[in-house]
Amino acid sequence: MSRPLLLNCDLGESFGAWRMGDDNAIMPLIDCANIACGFHASDPVTMDKTVALAAAHGVQIGAHPAYPDLVGFGRRSMALSADEITATVLYQIGALDGFCRRHQTAVRYVKPHGALYHDMIQHETTFRAILAAVQAYDPTLPLVLPARFDPEPWRVTAAEFGIQLWFEGFADRAYQVDANLVPRNQVGAVLSDLDAMVAQALQLAAGTVSSQNGEPLALHIDTLCVHGDTPQALAAVRAIRAALTA
Amino acid sequence: MSRPLLLNCDLGESFGAWRMGDDNAIMPLIDCANIACGFHASDPVTMDKTVALAAAHGVQIGAHPAYPDLVGFGRRSMALSADEITATVLYQIGALDGFCRRHQTAVRYVKPHGALYHDMIQHETTFRAILAAVQAYDPTLPLVLPARFDPEPWRVTAAEFGIQLWFEGFADRAYQVDANLVPRNQVGAVLSDLDAMVAQALQLAAGTVSSQNGEPLALHIDTLCVHGDTPQALAAVRAIRAALTA
Amino acid sequence: MSRPLLLNCDLGESFGAWRMGDDNAIMPLIDCANIACGFHASDPVTMDKTVALAAAHGVQIGAHPAYPDLVGFGRRSMALSADEITATVLYQIGALDGFCRRHQTAVRYVKPHGALYHDMIQHETTFRAILAAVQAYDPTLPLVLPARFDPEPWRVTAAEFGIQLWFEGFADRAYQVDANLVPRNQVGAVLSDLDAMVAQALQLAAGTVSSQNGEPLALHIDTLCVHGDTPQALAAVRAIRAALTA
Amino acid sequence: MSRPLLLNCDLGESFGAWRMGDDNAIMPLIDCANIACGFHASDPVTMDKTVALAAAHGVQIGAHPAYPDLVGFGRRSMALSADEITATVLYQIGALDGFCRRHQTAVRYVKPHGALYHDMIQHETTFRAILAAVQAYDPTLPLVLPARFDPEPWRVTAAEFGIQLWFEGFADRAYQVDANLVPRNQVGAVLSDLDAMVAQALQLAAGTVSSQNGEPLALHIDTLCVHGDTPQALAAVRAIRAALTA
Repeated sequence: MSRPLLLNCDLGESFGAWRMGDDNAIMPLIDCANIACGFHASDPVTMDKTVALAAAHGVQIGAHPAYPDLVGFGRRSMALSADEITATVLYQIGALDGFCRRHQTAVRYVKPHGALYHDMIQHETTFRAILAAVQAYDPTLPLVLPARFDPEPWRVTAAEFGIQLWFEGFADRAYQVDANLVPRNQVGAVLSDLDAMVAQALQLAAGTVSSQNGEPLALHIDTLCVHGDTPQALAAVRAIRAALTA
Repeated sequence: MSRPLLLNCDLGESFGAWRMGDDNAIMPLIDCANIACGFHASDPVTMDKTVALAAAHGVQIGAHPAYPDLVGFGRRSMALSADEITATVLYQIGALDGFCRRHQTAVRYVKPHGALYHDMIQHETTFRAILAAVQAYDPTLPLVLPARFDPEPWRVTAAEFGIQLWFEGFADRAYQVDANLVPRNQVGAVLSDLDAMVAQALQLAAGTVSSQNGEPLALHIDTLCVHGDTPQALAAVRAIRAALTA
Repeated sequence: MSRPLLLNCDLGESFGAWRMGDDNAIMPLIDCANIACGFHASDPVTMDKTVALAAAHGVQIGAHPAYPDLVGFGRRSMALSADEITATVLYQIGALDGFCRRHQTAVRYVKPHGALYHDMIQHETTFRAILAAVQAYDPTLPLVLPARFDPEPWRVTAAEFGIQLWFEGFADRAYQVDANLVPRNQVGAVLSDLDAMVAQALQLAAGTVSSQNGEPLALHIDTLCVHGDTPQALAAVRAIRAALTA
Repeated sequence: MSRPLLLNCDLGESFGAWRMGDDNAIMPLIDCANIACGFHASDPVTMDKTVALAAAHGVQIGAHPAYPDLVGFGRRSMALSADEITATVLYQIGALDGFCRRHQTAVRYVKPHGALYHDMIQHETTFRAILAAVQAYDPTLPLVLPARFDPEPWRVTAAEFGIQLWFEGFADRAYQVDANLVPRNQVGAVLSDLDAMVAQALQLAAGTVSSQNGEPLALHIDTLCVHGDTPQALAAVRAIRAALTA
């Protein structure tokens, strides 16, 4: 695949008086900003500032919709019906796009957040409900999904809605043999060594990943997610940016 | 004024499991639906249904943004900064427009709700902050304002933002000599007699209103607000619709 | 069992400007009011009025805590941790008790609402987390649970926390052979015939229930839940009250 | 006045995933913790942890109720009715007290937060509505008020409700000649010099304060508010604690 790997990061996750993340430092280093839409984080003023910052750096803006759960930061699964998921996602994309209009840009893709992102892989009804929302808003917007060893069934379903998928990898997370991430509560789930992160980023860029048993497995990704909310993480983003550009 | 008087009504004000208003009965009778955007009332599923209903009846859709105060139904003034007002209004217009896209329609105008509507007349900073939001979203959208005896200064300010104003009258509320409504807690504030409401509607359509001291005063309106949340109110809307059409 | 069967009802479920239920009509007919605490329904003013009404009628007050999900009315399961459940329930009991102090009464028992009520039966961690909250607040408060064919294991767990259980039956819902209610989306789940409801109430008062296959099964209940949010339901409550008193 | 000056600080103002303040460092240095109750900040789990921390250090716990405005951190005035204020404050005191029960302690006083604190001085109806809430919960709890040059009228009103007042001073804020704080947006409003803060603390402990024109004015305070949310502020708290103890 000749297209260069896009670096994406979750940004705009402050809320009211509470700060989260170092958006000013991260924004210049990435290609795509997944911007919170007020349901798990952010608020209208924060969204306005985050979109303005992304626009100033020419970064693509992705809607980062979530379950309606501020106190749980969208990390707790909620039993929404399919109609509720579609409407909830559609609301958030539209709200973010209002700020994009103000800053002469537009929402370019959609990446669900937290529990909604994980539930999309577990439940086909959730996946279809999200696809329906993207289709309703703008079927040219790609939807970001965790990379799958067999992406074909996912593409087939998305094609029913006319939606393109972007598969996503993680430089700082260990992979299970089923391509799912090792859960955070297990030892070794999160890579903390800078060199290991850069190595995994380069490996993913080349189309493979080493699973927990060490074997390299073919895994296609379109975009690489990085985190920048700690000084160490910021250093990792810089190193990965440099390695991928080299 | 040759343009026919537009009937508008606040709709889509249910929230989750709670019902409010008889949207199905009202929608066919009006020209313009002021649709709640989730801050004083409504939720994504309700917005989706209300927009679908409006689209099915060819009713123009107005965004009905409010202060973030569900428990107070947006009726309590809140000391937001100008930036907070602009961002809060912009968020709500965008969110509603997402549902309009799904139903092949669009937001056609903006009417602030409750305390925000009243504060817009009291504080020029509030008025300007709302104008800035409309301008940022789409400067061709008119903004609805209570009718003023001297509308010219309001038009001048709105023109700075390139925004057209729609002045609004009420068939069922008594007017003070300064064109403001008699506060609800005063005797005679709300007209309850059907004939009196129809008479005031026709009078407003002709460009005048009788103030509390009985004198007819010139008052230009572009749109007439009706309420339909009680059986009596629904009968009034039907009678006003018939009288204006005749 | 010599203790008379207590009639309980979910009350105080209005929210801000939205009305739900006919609390004034129901309150005089029941023994126990499960009062919403602001997380799935209600607000401080509504809680104050509902507690005052219960106190005026000498009705026992139960805290009716729920997941933090106003828009979903607490009916959607949420993946809270045990610590989050305990703290969330404790918060709501305390908040309600503040109003009880004002009206010279007190919270007398705890009945979880909606999805939290159902999850308590499905997940032992949820059950234990709720018990921990009741224990922390006041271990003399009983916890209401759906009636079980084999209540003993539940009593054993509750005894670890020093908590007494009240088992609850429903006059208007059909029972499966495992003592769980027939899900609402199945035919025959809800009894609509007044005589059938009264008959089931009397049967439950006598310690049995007819499962879907018609066979009477022994089922001990301490309290009977009634609904009064429709004219028909209100008639049913009156008939059940009369039958049980006779 | 022989009673030693109590140091109080706003604590427990994190919310969900967002951190605010260095509660662990501050708690051992103060006498009284004003603990957020979930309306302007905090959540049930944070309240539980904060109460546990206060109890562990033998710090008196004050309820810190606010307007219902998380996104505005309770700093924006809201036009609540007197009944709404009373019920809103009562709800928050009760909710906090639930956690106090868990940790074998109790709410010892009430200090309104942010805009509610300021509105209490501006509007007698607000002051009375808050007094009514404290009275309803427990009339032995003192209410914290900004120090007044003439405290007598305030004491007379509070006495109608049987409530004792604690007057509060600030070590790091400049005073106007009317005893109100110099607004934050004016030059010199906030003292940044450590020695100046300690000097003002000692002066307030002795019953006077220097107004902006330099003249020392008699001002009785019962408690001194300190802020510890920056490294510099923390150093100030340590220095003030040491100076007052010496």
